[in-house]
Amino acid sequence: MRKRQDALKMFSCGPDAPQPLSAMALRTVRFQEVDLMGVVWHGRYAEYFEDGRSAVGRAFGLDYRDFFREGIKAPVVNFEVEYGRSLLPGDTFLVETSLYWSEAVRLNHSYLIKREPDGLIMARGKTVQLLLDCQDQLLLVWPEYFLRLREKWRRGELVLSHG
Amino acid sequence: MRKRQDALKMFSCGPDAPQPLSAMALRTVRFQEVDLMGVVWHGRYAEYFEDGRSAVGRAFGLDYRDFFREGIKAPVVNFEVEYGRSLLPGDTFLVETSLYWSEAVRLNHSYLIKREPDGLIMARGKTVQLLLDCQDQLLLVWPEYFLRLREKWRRGELVLSHG
Amino acid sequence: MRKRQDALKMFSCGPDAPQPLSAMALRTVRFQEVDLMGVVWHGRYAEYFEDGRSAVGRAFGLDYRDFFREGIKAPVVNFEVEYGRSLLPGDTFLVETSLYWSEAVRLNHSYLIKREPDGLIMARGKTVQLLLDCQDQLLLVWPEYFLRLREKWRRGELVLSHG
Amino acid sequence: MRKRQDALKMFSCGPDAPQPLSAMALRTVRFQEVDLMGVVWHGRYAEYFEDGRSAVGRAFGLDYRDFFREGIKAPVVNFEVEYGRSLLPGDTFLVETSLYWSEAVRLNHSYLIKREPDGLIMARGKTVQLLLDCQDQLLLVWPEYFLRLREKWRRGELVLSHG
Repeated sequence: MRKRQDALKMFSCGPDAPQPLSAMALRTVRFQEVDLMGVVWHGRYAEYFEDGRSAVGRAFGLDYRDFFREGIKAPVVNFEVEYGRSLLPGDTFLVETSLYWSEAVRLNHSYLIKREPDGLIMARGKTVQLLLDCQDQLLLVWPEYFLRLREKWRRGELVLSHG
Repeated sequence: MRKRQDALKMFSCGPDAPQPLSAMALRTVRFQEVDLMGVVWHGRYAEYFEDGRSAVGRAFGLDYRDFFREGIKAPVVNFEVEYGRSLLPGDTFLVETSLYWSEAVRLNHSYLIKREPDGLIMARGKTVQLLLDCQDQLLLVWPEYFLRLREKWRRGELVLSHG
Repeated sequence: MRKRQDALKMFSCGPDAPQPLSAMALRTVRFQEVDLMGVVWHGRYAEYFEDGRSAVGRAFGLDYRDFFREGIKAPVVNFEVEYGRSLLPGDTFLVETSLYWSEAVRLNHSYLIKREPDGLIMARGKTVQLLLDCQDQLLLVWPEYFLRLREKWRRGELVLSHG
Repeated sequence: MRKRQDALKMFSCGPDAPQPLSAMALRTVRFQEVDLMGVVWHGRYAEYFEDGRSAVGRAFGLDYRDFFREGIKAPVVNFEVEYGRSLLPGDTFLVETSLYWSEAVRLNHSYLIKREPDGLIMARGKTVQLLLDCQDQLLLVWPEYFLRLREKWRRGELVLSHG
């Protein structure tokens, strides 16, 4: 299904930016995720993306529980999905999630939903999160906790192999 | 919260296109829609938009049950939300939904989440749906059922006042 | 559908107990609540009951936000549903919810799902909640806030007419 | 938390009944499953039980997709949960699910939610399902497909080791 004009614009990083941090989550379609039309209801993908983002978070120490401990909130301010093919009852799929380097204080994630075992891309998406401090004030500079992570990321110490 | 570069691109219609079909749904934030951070979880807005789209559907005879009866499926192929302010426990809000005229066979809806009673815009979004026939083949021309509706819409007989 | 042996055991109150506090919530089945079998997925009823409990809470000042303000948590420790007939796409129904008088420190609610407009009972259920203080300690005596409410309830000042 | 009077009544089978069919599903609490109180919202357990039932279904050929293929529906007519301790953000747990032998045409499942790695029981539950044929008529005798399965079950050929 070609959808030229809708094409999801992905994040662009400068030429010197380190590689995105990526991780995979494996999921199977659940009974209650399938709608009357026999396919996964489109609104369920927010949960799949959350699974993907959690996989990145756990792999690299960027989980919501880490944020919580640090007094940081990271509300999603932009959410976008482009659906290609429908996930069906019983389908197994990978959520391949990447966090992109950004100088601005925001967490930019992209998501690919790939059916298993054939690897067909079913949907693509992205989210943008801003950071708030414990008084709900927008953070305009990266807080200490992120600076340490970004230092390692920059030095290539956070890039894990997929999976 | 200014978000210039992310700005949600809304649907554009030709100068002769009839006015969008609009309707309102009134909702109150539910306990289970609020997350650990004390705000409505971003993934819940797909449900709010579904409420909005249903309101348009019921008001103008475009409900999923009408589609079902006609053997038409209308899968969402693009879904986008831009979040401005967070909905809080107990907030009441309107989902203001508009279906835009389109020559191409697609249902283009936009959504505004407006807090009550002050009318503050909390989030904006859009969805794009394609139409499939009962063999899951993409419809490239409007089916009879829609032609009749569009005829009325064109003549201004489907434009209800808001609410 | 007779289901004698499973019959849901409802709450019994002493002969002097004041009437239950009851309220109604009106709902329409949503598209995403319907499963592959064409009926509302059984797990959705927890949301319907939450709507019902909220209606009682708002009507009588027993909302989770009231609890929150008072530093009281009210976790559900028992949840039960007996399903008679399936709710279908587009069905409209009332959630008729009653809070029963209890000497022991617990909130005992019963729920009736009644299809509109014919009033047919589709499902019945109940929940039991205990009360915790802000240190997550079980409350064995009714806290001040509830004592005031119960005083009014006892005097018949909290019994609203249905609806 | 002792809850004597609420104690969930489990299924009883005759002395000659074959052992229940049991399977495990491993889950981690998701961000969006946690409510404002910081614990998993009680209504989420229906999804956990569905995961557990699916694990049994896949292990023994009793999946909803098998039913679908056979033209059999299996609506849940009774659902019950007894909550002991709350699941917290990030908790990992097993859903230990057992399907009990029954002469009457019904699927009786029990569920244990056990926190990992300490094995603490967090919640217990059960569901009862009836069987309907493709005309939504209640099945009073086991259909062919189940008879074959039950034959194997009776002979002890369906009893897998846990996990």
